[in-house]
Amino acid sequence: METIQSRHNPLFKHLHKLATQRRERLKSRQTLLDGPHLLASALDAGWVPGRLLATPQGMASPEIAALIRRAGSPLTLIDPTLFADLSELPSPTGVLALTDWPASKTPRRDGFCLLLDGVQDPGNVGTILRTAAAAGVMQVLLSPGCADVWSPKVLRSGMGAHFLLDIVERADLPAFADDFQGVIAATLLDGAIDLHAASLTGDLALAVGAEGQGVTPELAARARLRLRIPMAPGVESLNVGAAAAICLYERVRQLGGMFPPRA
Amino acid sequence: METIQSRHNPLFKHLHKLATQRRERLKSRQTLLDGPHLLASALDAGWVPGRLLATPQGMASPEIAALIRRAGSPLTLIDPTLFADLSELPSPTGVLALTDWPASKTPRRDGFCLLLDGVQDPGNVGTILRTAAAAGVMQVLLSPGCADVWSPKVLRSGMGAHFLLDIVERADLPAFADDFQGVIAATLLDGAIDLHAASLTGDLALAVGAEGQGVTPELAARARLRLRIPMAPGVESLNVGAAAAICLYERVRQLGGMFPPRA
Repeated sequence: METIQSRHNPLFKHLHKLATQRRERLKSRQTLLDGPHLLASALDAGWVPGRLLATPQGMASPEIAALIRRAGSPLTLIDPTLFADLSELPSPTGVLALTDWPASKTPRRDGFCLLLDGVQDPGNVGTILRTAAAAGVMQVLLSPGCADVWSPKVLRSGMGAHFLLDIVERADLPAFADDFQGVIAATLLDGAIDLHAASLTGDLALAVGAEGQGVTPELAARARLRLRIPMAPGVESLNVGAAAAICLYERVRQLGGMFPPRA
Repeated sequence: METIQSRHNPLFKHLHKLATQRRERLKSRQTLLDGPHLLASALDAGWVPGRLLATPQGMASPEIAALIRRAGSPLTLIDPTLFADLSELPSPTGVLALTDWPASKTPRRDGFCLLLDGVQDPGNVGTILRTAAAAGVMQVLLSPGCADVWSPKVLRSGMGAHFLLDIVERADLPAFADDFQGVIAATLLDGAIDLHAASLTGDLALAVGAEGQGVTPELAARARLRLRIPMAPGVESLNVGAAAAICLYERVRQLGGMFPPRA
């Protein structure tokens, strides 16, 4: 079995760039999944990693050994010190999966979509993807100013949501809104309709915006539903992840907890 | 005007411990508010900081100068390099407020309370406080395992919620639940009742738990409402901040967006 024991190993150099540089991820359309939880989520969703990398300690874990067998991907051993260079986590997980991004998706024109407009914080983006997957969102579109959806931080806080959702990066959200056949809704601090008074049951694209700025004026102008989340006196705004969760789950409620198939 | 120009200055030493050590915050029952936004929120809520510290650059900002006049607290100038040592933020805000914690609160026995059980991530705790303030929560009780609610990170992500809420740290949540006169509700992965089918309108204490473990068995055993948040197939759980937002706002919806006075 091949073993990576040097920083000069060409595969290690590629992996290190993937772990640290958006440019490399964009160029190769690949990323790294760190740890058994993300790997299991990917396998559950039918993804086949191109290669697995494990430390000797990782191989000795029954959980990781079972995942390696299940994946059936080529396996490379890696020195624990070098593995730590590829991981942001304080205690190394012992297994990394090198995987291609899914094929580029065409923006949908119907169904249940979520539009992220300039959401820069990776933790927020990941958490929102996780909530979106739970709420039955079919496609998430991210504006160019959003955090890199395939970065290790977003993958980690997404907790596997990446493998359930159709993701469109660097999307032209106003153009998407012009083509979408259902209702465009946006959460706005000066929204005209109370969230709980709005009908959110049909084909719907919900837009949430960056902390501070909110949804861009170009996108807000295309929103038929300008939603206002009620807030107690003294509070100016909500975290974007909380706002998204509240709105997405208001639709879940209105649909009686039924989740249409994602396809 | 006094100016701090040395790391050996006794006030600076105290401030630095406050910025970095929970033990010092607990001992002195003080904390630091970093930046004009938190300071303005504190003043809006009637807090009077014991002392303000500003850099010459901060004093030159009209926003900060106005806040300093408004607060009327004693002011100390501080060297910008030393100021940066007290702040976690990459670009220094120019003003810090040294403030006492509010007097210890007695746990409530009615109203709308939120119980955080072992929520360790400071960003999650701060975001949850922010959502709780927006949803009209009156008191938040935190178990001993939670992140330090008066730490700079929690204050920052709370965005001023600390000044609107009654906060009880290191609370005995099961004992609180035994004394509470209203309904105890908890979000549980194996909850027995769908969130949207539960009545959440009366005196209510909602418990949410740590990522992974959830609410402790001792607290869960005291929950009359064992809430299950519906999730689409393939998703195992939600971020605790998202789960809290969804549940808190289901009550807001059931109350028709009316917020009873907090007192």
